[in-house]
Amino acid sequence: MARLTKYSTDEGPGDYPRDRIFRPKSIAVMGVTPTPGTVPYDIFHNILSSGYTGVLYPVAPGKRAISSVRAYRYLTDIEDDVDLAVIVFPAAVCERALTMCGQKGVKGVIVISAGFREVGPEGAEREQRIRDICKDYDISLIGPNCLGVINTDPEIRLNASFARKMPAEGRIAFLSQSGALGTAVLDYARAKNIGFSKFISFGNKAGVTEIGLLDYLYKDDKTDVILLYLEELRDGRGLIEEAKRITRGPNAKPILAIKAGRTPQGADAASSHTGSLAGEDAICEAVFREAGIIRVGSIEDLFDTALLLANQPMPSGDRVAIITNAGGPGVMATDAAVSVGLEMARFAPETTDRLRAALPAAANVKNPVDVIGDAPCGRYEAALEAVLADPEVDQVLVILTPQSMTDIDAIARGIVRIHAGSDKPLACSFMGACDVQSGIDILQAAHIPHYILPEWACAAMAGVQRIRRWRDTPLVPFQPLAVDQSAARAVIDPAPSGYLPEDQALAVLAAYGLPVPPHRLCRSLEETVAFADQLGYPVVLRVVSPHIIHKFELKGVALDLADADAVAAAYEAMIANIGKVMPAAEICGVLVRPMIPPGREVILGAKRDPVFGPTLMFGVGGVFVEVFRDVTFGLAPIDAGTASRMVRGIRSIDVLRGARGTEAADLAGIEGCLRRVGQLVSDFERIAELDVNPLIAGPAERGCAVADVRIRLE
Amino acid sequence: MARLTKYSTDEGPGDYPRDRIFRPKSIAVMGVTPTPGTVPYDIFHNILSSGYTGVLYPVAPGKRAISSVRAYRYLTDIEDDVDLAVIVFPAAVCERALTMCGQKGVKGVIVISAGFREVGPEGAEREQRIRDICKDYDISLIGPNCLGVINTDPEIRLNASFARKMPAEGRIAFLSQSGALGTAVLDYARAKNIGFSKFISFGNKAGVTEIGLLDYLYKDDKTDVILLYLEELRDGRGLIEEAKRITRGPNAKPILAIKAGRTPQGADAASSHTGSLAGEDAICEAVFREAGIIRVGSIEDLFDTALLLANQPMPSGDRVAIITNAGGPGVMATDAAVSVGLEMARFAPETTDRLRAALPAAANVKNPVDVIGDAPCGRYEAALEAVLADPEVDQVLVILTPQSMTDIDAIARGIVRIHAGSDKPLACSFMGACDVQSGIDILQAAHIPHYILPEWACAAMAGVQRIRRWRDTPLVPFQPLAVDQSAARAVIDPAPSGYLPEDQALAVLAAYGLPVPPHRLCRSLEETVAFADQLGYPVVLRVVSPHIIHKFELKGVALDLADADAVAAAYEAMIANIGKVMPAAEICGVLVRPMIPPGREVILGAKRDPVFGPTLMFGVGGVFVEVFRDVTFGLAPIDAGTASRMVRGIRSIDVLRGARGTEAADLAGIEGCLRRVGQLVSDFERIAELDVNPLIAGPAERGCAVADVRIRLE
Repeated sequence: MARLTKYSTDEGPGDYPRDRIFRPKSIAVMGVTPTPGTVPYDIFHNILSSGYTGVLYPVAPGKRAISSVRAYRYLTDIEDDVDLAVIVFPAAVCERALTMCGQKGVKGVIVISAGFREVGPEGAEREQRIRDICKDYDISLIGPNCLGVINTDPEIRLNASFARKMPAEGRIAFLSQSGALGTAVLDYARAKNIGFSKFISFGNKAGVTEIGLLDYLYKDDKTDVILLYLEELRDGRGLIEEAKRITRGPNAKPILAIKAGRTPQGADAASSHTGSLAGEDAICEAVFREAGIIRVGSIEDLFDTALLLANQPMPSGDRVAIITNAGGPGVMATDAAVSVGLEMARFAPETTDRLRAALPAAANVKNPVDVIGDAPCGRYEAALEAVLADPEVDQVLVILTPQSMTDIDAIARGIVRIHAGSDKPLACSFMGACDVQSGIDILQAAHIPHYILPEWACAAMAGVQRIRRWRDTPLVPFQPLAVDQSAARAVIDPAPSGYLPEDQALAVLAAYGLPVPPHRLCRSLEETVAFADQLGYPVVLRVVSPHIIHKFELKGVALDLADADAVAAAYEAMIANIGKVMPAAEICGVLVRPMIPPGREVILGAKRDPVFGPTLMFGVGGVFVEVFRDVTFGLAPIDAGTASRMVRGIRSIDVLRGARGTEAADLAGIEGCLRRVGQLVSDFERIAELDVNPLIAGPAERGCAVADVRIRLE
Repeated sequence: MARLTKYSTDEGPGDYPRDRIFRPKSIAVMGVTPTPGTVPYDIFHNILSSGYTGVLYPVAPGKRAISSVRAYRYLTDIEDDVDLAVIVFPAAVCERALTMCGQKGVKGVIVISAGFREVGPEGAEREQRIRDICKDYDISLIGPNCLGVINTDPEIRLNASFARKMPAEGRIAFLSQSGALGTAVLDYARAKNIGFSKFISFGNKAGVTEIGLLDYLYKDDKTDVILLYLEELRDGRGLIEEAKRITRGPNAKPILAIKAGRTPQGADAASSHTGSLAGEDAICEAVFREAGIIRVGSIEDLFDTALLLANQPMPSGDRVAIITNAGGPGVMATDAAVSVGLEMARFAPETTDRLRAALPAAANVKNPVDVIGDAPCGRYEAALEAVLADPEVDQVLVILTPQSMTDIDAIARGIVRIHAGSDKPLACSFMGACDVQSGIDILQAAHIPHYILPEWACAAMAGVQRIRRWRDTPLVPFQPLAVDQSAARAVIDPAPSGYLPEDQALAVLAAYGLPVPPHRLCRSLEETVAFADQLGYPVVLRVVSPHIIHKFELKGVALDLADADAVAAAYEAMIANIGKVMPAAEICGVLVRPMIPPGREVILGAKRDPVFGPTLMFGVGGVFVEVFRDVTFGLAPIDAGTASRMVRGIRSIDVLRGARGTEAADLAGIEGCLRRVGQLVSDFERIAELDVNPLIAGPAERGCAVADVRIRLE
């Protein structure tokens, strides 16, 4: 089935990558020098020696030829059309080179050269100028300050990068903001026999960004898995929207990402490295998850999961069978599998019978299957065949330890043979490093992923499990709830910056359908008592003043007032006290509302993040948030699925479910409130912060009620 | 300084390892066969070809020679003294072989052969018989069912194992219960250039156990770091006592351990593999920590930390400086360092000046220092020299990415040269795998630990940090608190199995100095009211019956009774209700005590673990324990240090410290109570379970009070 993408492969705006960059028929390298070991020479030489299937032109003013290839003084001297220009001139010359690309009609350009935004304000201005030139001439630009681009497709075979060697062909695309990390990744992958479909270093992303690249790779038939290394999120929301589209449904492609700058210190270092805004990492973590981006901590984690995704079928469930010739590693693998959330398969009786028949008496025929230290190839084959045939098994991990009688290569070949007919994923761990290497080579040649430690295989399976579950989560299009936007607008638009008075904030929430109790802002003792009488008792009084944010601390709240006398006394005490401790405070009145019956206090928060825009936070009030920081985040607005995952994703969810005899809280009601808050803050850009704290969530039949709210406008 | 050990190196009981096993002057291999590829031949051949400095005798009935070495029919035919016998006969012949060892006066034996406890009851009996023979003849036994023993000391050079190759010499000793895992570990270590002092596979530990081996390695001058792989804890307490002695103080040696069976499923698998008792893993985790054993999850983690410990000096603090030629990995390393608990060093002004003078303008002279992608060797040298000289820096991590102009070998040599004079630990991460290999070799030859990923280097540094902090924790000898043991004994000894009645349980606690409120077991309405009057109000009534464990559920508790009338009414209602709902319950009386003023409710628990004996648990009552399972464990009895770490080690400690305006609880009082409970359960073996739940902890001036207790006797 064709994938819907924004643009066809060779059109779209300048920040969108084009086939001309990745599948050019002709390339000009601008700024080549004849000195090996320099970037300008290496780039040219890498294209020349990688087996590139098109035509290559060096532009090298003053040279007759580079590596025996006829050189041109100017780009415009080339008689042929040029699809892609790779610019390696010093930064100062890049503007002229780009203008020349525009004049020549070149629509794809990679600027390798550094010396732009990353070196300070002067470089940033230079970068803005090249961005303008690209816009004027409709040039799609990769870079500047990047490693370049690699396409291993045999039809193209392009290594337009200064990476030392061209990687093997494979089904993994790697997008790296850092060029230096890119060199390390390519070297690392080579040692592990990891192949790539494309390798793209996008550097300062002055033109093409990771967002356009994701779309491009989504429709790339050579790519099954997308890996992303990001240092700087400029358009967090755009990335999330793009990722959401790519990672779900039958045509989904998984995205695994490293986002550097997890800790405040790391974010500081990143900011001094790229001059970028960090955004809050906990939010980044959460919204990546809601967009189906699997965030991992290290390069190792990235490839561990990617290898399984790119080389094996998706399992149909979480149940893993383990086969081992050593008990200890079997136990450790079981520990690892269960810890990461896999399930140990319980074999069908026929499987146990088959195993018992095929294995010696001392073997363990339950999961993990122990074929015993002296196992020859045949025992491994019989065990693997039996567990692969078992409908209770979704995936298999085979472990081998190199004992003196272990025929490593024969076992590897046997595993490959038996697995060949199966549609269940298989991973292996031949433990050790030297003696087992030839066996590992046999497995890898047959595209069976290998992990030095069984624990890593389990972690990779867990990554695949997350991806499968996410892919199968129905994609419910966002449905806005019915709200009275104009009523909210009537309050917000005329209001000055700062906190909205409580009555106005409640009016805004009420307009968006949140359960705001009946209330009135009363301006005299008489009005207060009369409204309280009308409501019925008990009631609450809350002072309303633009100068009083923390009402409780100034005794501006009186709770549980049982009758008119109590209301009158509380009113007078409140006014008198504030007149004493904060005589300058302008008092708008006293808000009167019923006392809300007890329930679980939850917090709905919203905040405008510099990178992601309006974000939502959810938690249970009290120690859960304050001591355990047990909160979840989302990107506003949220659909019903996200609301459910946010509310049910807190660790203390049992408290809301009514564990241990307490009453269950109205979860559906809380989720509805969270969605309404999300819609509100995404409809009104001026809302910088919003806290419903607490929302009191009673049992389902009574529902929720807003007990306190603060809204800060910008 | 000499280390105190239990025995000298060549005496002690049979379960104690001896020099004769590891430093034998002569060895007999009993059961050698002439067929290469079999265990019996391989063992003999490995000793012969490893360069063993003593004399080797094959015992091979019916053979004239094995590998040209004169063979003996019987052990007793050998004219020479034999220090060590290695038995590779089939299991059934081992008893006879061992008896012959005894007759010959051999005091050290390794039984490689399998077919003992691990194969079922018959094997277990066979194992018991060889254990008896060893006892009779005072033989120190390693195995059976093991891989053997390796000693790399050039004076000995012994590979009495069927591991494929002898490892390099090094300062790390490896103890492995699993032979199969041992083969994998040796192969793995060879690829990483990791050397060992000794490698000991102890299998079924019928004679020598890990405990004796720890003591032996503690005094072994060739060993700096001890690694332990355990599947089965038989004497958990003995291991803990031994480890405590080894891991603290100026002569400490670090112990890192893998204990398989973390999860219930893993423990199940371990039990079907070794037939061993599991014990509770959370307790294992906690008591390992309190014994200074660093428990890690995988072989990789084990060696990552061990390499740093064995090759570099101990840092004097937590502050790390990072030098990199690529911003992204610098950011990721910063994230990793901070996440694992290291501190990013803040350079002294002179360091920043030196860096600024030595590095180009675009470099980052703050931590992490970025020497920029095109850095030649000189820049790395200057940066490393500057940060090593900075008193604000305790340790250094150098990162390199292989860019096209990077002279990897020169930089590696430069790093080695500059670091040579320093007493600060250094780790490197040359990222990648192929291109960087020659540089890695240069570093490793100079004993500078190398990690493929900077994150792993940080994890290793964090492991060293834990070890350093533990080593420096003062070792306070256990001081029993003053208690009235005989008063407790007077209650416990005559009591039958089952729960102690509440008044007796309180009496036991009171005898051990816990803050038990004044109380009396009253047997009539009159006595109840009279004692309540005497106490003063409010009071609490609690029914006491051997048949009522859950008092609250049967309305057997009445709280906060304000006067004599309330007491009388409550008494009658209570007796009436129990007579109705549980007419068969024998009522001993009603316990009367004052109402304890509110405070934080904490839980002190004790339980007899099958592996560790009496253990203690601590947590804060309510959601902290129930929802977040926020508890700590210890091995009873505990000293003041452990009590403090247990109480202050819960995640919700801020709740007890009085965060956010609430009152601080009496931490010292809680710790005292925990110590007293620990002393109680370790003094009385019959106590199977004890729960003080809750202990109500008020502010320090008011202290703690026991509100409820259950003690179950065996």
